[in-house]
Amino acid sequence: MIIDCHGHYTTAPPALAAWRERQIAALAGSAAAPSPAGLRISDDELRESVEPNQLRMMDERGIDVTVFSPRASFMAHHVGDFRTSAAWAALCNELCHRVAGLYPERFVPAAMLPQSPGVDPATCVPELTRCVEEYGAVAVNLNPDPSGGHWTAPPLTDRSWYPLYEKLVEYDVPAMVHVSTSVNPAFHTTGAHYLNADTTAFMQLVQGDLFADFPTLRLVLPHGGGAVPYHWGRFRGLAMALGQPPLEEHVLGNVFFDTCVYHQPGIDLLLDVVPARNVLFASEMIGAVRDVDPCTGHHFDDTRRYVEASALSAEQVAAVREHNARSVYPRLDALLKRQGR
Amino acid sequence: MIIDCHGHYTTAPPALAAWRERQIAALAGSAAAPSPAGLRISDDELRESVEPNQLRMMDERGIDVTVFSPRASFMAHHVGDFRTSAAWAALCNELCHRVAGLYPERFVPAAMLPQSPGVDPATCVPELTRCVEEYGAVAVNLNPDPSGGHWTAPPLTDRSWYPLYEKLVEYDVPAMVHVSTSVNPAFHTTGAHYLNADTTAFMQLVQGDLFADFPTLRLVLPHGGGAVPYHWGRFRGLAMALGQPPLEEHVLGNVFFDTCVYHQPGIDLLLDVVPARNVLFASEMIGAVRDVDPCTGHHFDDTRRYVEASALSAEQVAAVREHNARSVYPRLDALLKRQGR
Repeated sequence: MIIDCHGHYTTAPPALAAWRERQIAALAGSAAAPSPAGLRISDDELRESVEPNQLRMMDERGIDVTVFSPRASFMAHHVGDFRTSAAWAALCNELCHRVAGLYPERFVPAAMLPQSPGVDPATCVPELTRCVEEYGAVAVNLNPDPSGGHWTAPPLTDRSWYPLYEKLVEYDVPAMVHVSTSVNPAFHTTGAHYLNADTTAFMQLVQGDLFADFPTLRLVLPHGGGAVPYHWGRFRGLAMALGQPPLEEHVLGNVFFDTCVYHQPGIDLLLDVVPARNVLFASEMIGAVRDVDPCTGHHFDDTRRYVEASALSAEQVAAVREHNARSVYPRLDALLKRQGR
Repeated sequence: MIIDCHGHYTTAPPALAAWRERQIAALAGSAAAPSPAGLRISDDELRESVEPNQLRMMDERGIDVTVFSPRASFMAHHVGDFRTSAAWAALCNELCHRVAGLYPERFVPAAMLPQSPGVDPATCVPELTRCVEEYGAVAVNLNPDPSGGHWTAPPLTDRSWYPLYEKLVEYDVPAMVHVSTSVNPAFHTTGAHYLNADTTAFMQLVQGDLFADFPTLRLVLPHGGGAVPYHWGRFRGLAMALGQPPLEEHVLGNVFFDTCVYHQPGIDLLLDVVPARNVLFASEMIGAVRDVDPCTGHHFDDTRRYVEASALSAEQVAAVREHNARSVYPRLDALLKRQGR
């Protein structure tokens, strides 16, 4: 079985974006706030949005199951206030839940959180609870920078994040650390902000001692961990200089990297320096890079090819493609077992 | 010959830091501003600061020449205003010039600029001019984020930077794109901010079309280009999605990567995906990572070992170690030739 732990609903029916536009217009005072009940999307529209897109590509690539969360760049936590994010997250999470309900063997929901800049992360606990208990969410996406590229939030090791971690630990649910769109003109969203955030989060974890307080918390760093594996020697040396234990002891019991690295040499490096047990198969398709690589004739984001062409043993490939995800996402494993898989 | 294009004066005599502390105290109103003439450092003190440090390690590692600029994390352009940075840059640049004067075959000066957040980069032209014409600076360090981690400056493709580029082109002098210390608690200076800045700058250049306006401008991205080579496929795909030419045509005529990547797999990746003509030998020692790697028994930042153990041909190694630097830094080449080297 192949589990893709990083998929977003990037192809949601246009009515969702139209609703969001009305919500943003209302914030500017130029329209009335739209009602959540006013968003009407039929099951057929949902099917039409994924069957020729994610589902087709999953079939073509042999991906059995995708952990499916709202579109990352559309989370846009910087917009409005907590109420804005709460209404928006509720709608987006419901849609992923509905897609998973239509294809229960192909999509498993993960939730976005109603974060807002400067707002206590504890306010996100009710939506987290709702998504896990009512929707069967097996993971959440946690934005370390709800400001959208201004980086005004404290590091992930700050105690203000602890109420979220407590709930994640209670549910045994991992968080993928994933920013949203950048409104800072210095940072291109998918070409800089995403990668910077992954690097930044890792270094925050190296500096701090979060997993002493939450020994069972699991965080997934997307996009292959940003710059981290490429600079593994730097991070090992910085941990030494900071008086921290080696990375293997200090963070690798709790931190995992996905395989959203879109060329063979990058995947080879990732799998060379990061232990295979810390790597989770993912493609983030249909996402930031949608074209066919003219050098290979295959999609840049067809990461299965790279993983299978790597130097990993068959056993390690199976761990990366399936078994690691089952242990990092226990609620996904339980669901698959209930399905007899 | 081995040329290290990335060295900072991290071991300057303590009187320099003490002067800076007085300057900062004066900004807070708690002391009188120190006079630049009040900084007295003898030639012997300069010798004592580099002979047991950079020079010793250059000898041990067989590095002939280092392009030597003020300590990057101490540039701290966020402190005070333009006058603050102007006084500080003048002192720091003078010290690198004096070290180069004491060891003219070993150190060649590069300049920091008196940048200040929100201040027109054109204000840096006089110091650039002074350092090139009077001190023989062969390069400058250009900070894409003078705010120190708040990223309030426009992208490097913005026209406000053009007066600097015009002067660099006139002098045929490259700029290394190098941030300074982070005062944003989200970003560890050397473990996140430096790498993020390299990635961010590259993506700004991919998005824009700077080299159409400055076809002979050369920018060096330190720290192996941050996350860029590891995500080369992503950047190639993003360039396609943005309708830009392939990276080779669009930026690789003007952008160069140093080898400050502190482990063998990272250097192997860099040299695998980036053409050898775009890679410049560097170690940034004595810098962010000073320890011995317990896995190899050698210093993490002893990058010569990695380059020589890579798959490059002898000719390519010579290009990375010497010839590329001579062509990217023509004033360095001219100096070496005057020295009969």
